[in-house]
Amino acid sequence: MEEMDRNSLFHPLTSIAAHQQGGPKIMAGAKGVRLRDHAGREMLDCSGGLWCVNIGYGRPEIAEAASKAILDLNYWHLFGSSSHEASIRLADRVLNLMHEHADARHLRRVFFGTSGSDANDTNYKLVRYYANLRGTPEKRKIISRKGGYHGLTAAAATLTGIESYHTAWSLPSTDVVHAECPHLYRFGLDGESEAAYCDRLIADLEAIIEREGPDTVGAFIAEPIMGTGGVLIPPAGYFERVQAVLDKHDILMIADEVITGFGRTGQWFGTGLFGLKPDMVTLAKGITSAYFPVSASVISERVWKVLEAASPEHGPVMHGFTYSGHPVGAAIAMANLDIIENEGMVGNAAEVGPYLLEGLKARLGDHPHVGEIRGRGLMIGVEFMADRAKRKPFAAAQNAHRLVAAHAVEHGLMVRALPYLEVISFSPPLCITKADCDEAVDRFARALETSTPELRRLAAG
Amino acid sequence: MEEMDRNSLFHPLTSIAAHQQGGPKIMAGAKGVRLRDHAGREMLDCSGGLWCVNIGYGRPEIAEAASKAILDLNYWHLFGSSSHEASIRLADRVLNLMHEHADARHLRRVFFGTSGSDANDTNYKLVRYYANLRGTPEKRKIISRKGGYHGLTAAAATLTGIESYHTAWSLPSTDVVHAECPHLYRFGLDGESEAAYCDRLIADLEAIIEREGPDTVGAFIAEPIMGTGGVLIPPAGYFERVQAVLDKHDILMIADEVITGFGRTGQWFGTGLFGLKPDMVTLAKGITSAYFPVSASVISERVWKVLEAASPEHGPVMHGFTYSGHPVGAAIAMANLDIIENEGMVGNAAEVGPYLLEGLKARLGDHPHVGEIRGRGLMIGVEFMADRAKRKPFAAAQNAHRLVAAHAVEHGLMVRALPYLEVISFSPPLCITKADCDEAVDRFARALETSTPELRRLAAG
Repeated sequence: MEEMDRNSLFHPLTSIAAHQQGGPKIMAGAKGVRLRDHAGREMLDCSGGLWCVNIGYGRPEIAEAASKAILDLNYWHLFGSSSHEASIRLADRVLNLMHEHADARHLRRVFFGTSGSDANDTNYKLVRYYANLRGTPEKRKIISRKGGYHGLTAAAATLTGIESYHTAWSLPSTDVVHAECPHLYRFGLDGESEAAYCDRLIADLEAIIEREGPDTVGAFIAEPIMGTGGVLIPPAGYFERVQAVLDKHDILMIADEVITGFGRTGQWFGTGLFGLKPDMVTLAKGITSAYFPVSASVISERVWKVLEAASPEHGPVMHGFTYSGHPVGAAIAMANLDIIENEGMVGNAAEVGPYLLEGLKARLGDHPHVGEIRGRGLMIGVEFMADRAKRKPFAAAQNAHRLVAAHAVEHGLMVRALPYLEVISFSPPLCITKADCDEAVDRFARALETSTPELRRLAAG
Repeated sequence: MEEMDRNSLFHPLTSIAAHQQGGPKIMAGAKGVRLRDHAGREMLDCSGGLWCVNIGYGRPEIAEAASKAILDLNYWHLFGSSSHEASIRLADRVLNLMHEHADARHLRRVFFGTSGSDANDTNYKLVRYYANLRGTPEKRKIISRKGGYHGLTAAAATLTGIESYHTAWSLPSTDVVHAECPHLYRFGLDGESEAAYCDRLIADLEAIIEREGPDTVGAFIAEPIMGTGGVLIPPAGYFERVQAVLDKHDILMIADEVITGFGRTGQWFGTGLFGLKPDMVTLAKGITSAYFPVSASVISERVWKVLEAASPEHGPVMHGFTYSGHPVGAAIAMANLDIIENEGMVGNAAEVGPYLLEGLKARLGDHPHVGEIRGRGLMIGVEFMADRAKRKPFAAAQNAHRLVAAHAVEHGLMVRALPYLEVISFSPPLCITKADCDEAVDRFARALETSTPELRRLAAG
């Protein structure tokens, strides 16, 4: 099986050379929060796959929903006014869930896809479409942020503000500019207060808009909490002030909730957590807990009204995918949302998340190479430092945090080393218990202990 | 349900104004080649969804495979050398299937995604990556063709050569140029022979390469038979000569087999049908018969070798999606391929396709507004003309063929009116029988009869 892998699969986000040498790490099964690899070794999954398996693995309710949906109507599309009940009900339910947040009651329509990447690609296209239909075709640039992750189609990758995804790919220049990354711990100046740092971020945003010209800026895109960037929580007041700047210049707000959506942060959406007023919301991952590829772009009243008014003149909206609104995906999403609701998983994330966070802080907070431990709900990051006292990071090429994540696997704990800063993320299924968290903290602490001599060497070197 | 649809769903490829008036057409169930709508009306499906439900609807084997896969390992990814058996086996099987075509034995690796759009977006990015790794960064333009359909992410949409998908979207200029559409019946000159027409197409391609500069052209992308463009079969010898031009200028060949793959044309792949030697092959739709969103980019030896050689220097290939290699999708794809193989569906397409084609010709070939009826296997197009004798098309805005497709639905037959030329396509599930085809021809003939007075009026007007 390993040889077949090396001879047939082109792995995403993988070094070909390392893979040909180290071979694949084959996963064989999963249940709840536990993984089992090819060799029968059990692991506690604090990655949630790629931040996505919100309800946990192997739920029979989902298997039943999938089987039933396949036998009923295994496929139909939404082109040319075609429809089916499953996608209608899911769109309605997503809107209702978003509307529970008072500031999101202006969201009006749901466009489906299969991945966060395609949903952000749709948003990218819609910003341009909206600008054209309003008669302001130049107002189409999108401001993203350094450290932001918005997917990897060509257009989505330009939104992504992490350089390693750009190098060697020559992404075309496509009206995207990147503002500063909001992460006080790493990017705050010596002695800078949270309030002063926030002032500086807002000044940067305003300067970019002035430099580019407000008439050329159509939208701003942000993850409420940056995920792949390193579980980065913006300074207090940041989004409120960003929103005011956007409003002043008639700039759309796109909330990328691919990771933060569906309970991850202990609220249904990051939009609610920070009181965002988005014009587009990107959803994926937790909408099906990764049992089926489904994504969505949720569109606000003001965007929809422009599209609607222009419709008689412009005819069909010439955008969509074969699997925009898959009936099996929609049925699985509904069963997934039932489980999240019936088992109180959002509440569990709100309760167990802080328990895990405090557990990590209590056990590791004094470690000489652990800088900051932070999070909201079950989205937690541990940032490593070469010198904690001086807040001096490891050199990026040292991959210090990858070393720790690799040792964690040896200790039976799956966590992820992220590609922007030296951060390890915890994003377990939302059904994780306090007992599981104790075990996770213990395994991670042991992995860190194993790693410490190497970290010390790297820090010295 | 209809009101909920209008108030919540943003339909792809749909006119918002028409939808608010006409409301959704809700599909309720499907089995084999039969659809059943919300009102209980049965329809014979000669659309195959969107060219995708190759094995037919509602197969219990797929429901079982899905259920089992979900309980075993409902999700894992392929990032960072992670792997799982289902995706390994599927990659191996896809390569083996392609290798049955003698000219495709150089295909080496499979990269998974969820849609034809994302697979072509991946190909678009890989052309640039390959150029950079070889040290020829300028050799990255892609020649596509007018009428070609390659998906609708921003990058894929630039490859698509159908203007209606570009208008109002301001797609960024991204190193894509469009060559002539190879369709003798419509674009051949008066009295031009097939051979002379082919000469002209090849001269056009060579002129484009000269104009752009061979050092700037990285790839050529083509559907073996254009689907959305109108089931357009190139003139004899076309691809052989295209391939020679590409070879001369060191230009990669990308075969977009999203529609033609997995038996549609009566062979496993269009690559085999025309003896193509592709460097990348785009697969989707038939790989799972639309039971689950899975796509693939299959990469040749020469591309892989460049990526492999550059790997130690460049590190991980920084591209991929959360659902690149979904274990449930792979399990469903395997069960789907079992059905295609065990039930001889490729052979059935090769046998029943010509039967349907001849049936349509015999019954409709003399109709004053039917121009050409053509196809390979179960991929058939009927092209309408305002004046058949003078080969004068209807004006595009008249949507003459849409009228016929709408009447077909009333007569219990689902076919699709395509957006480039006035063509209705037949692409039924590959399990369709000759008796079903008789019924399809009969229903279509009656729909055409109903439409004739209106077509006559449009042709006169």
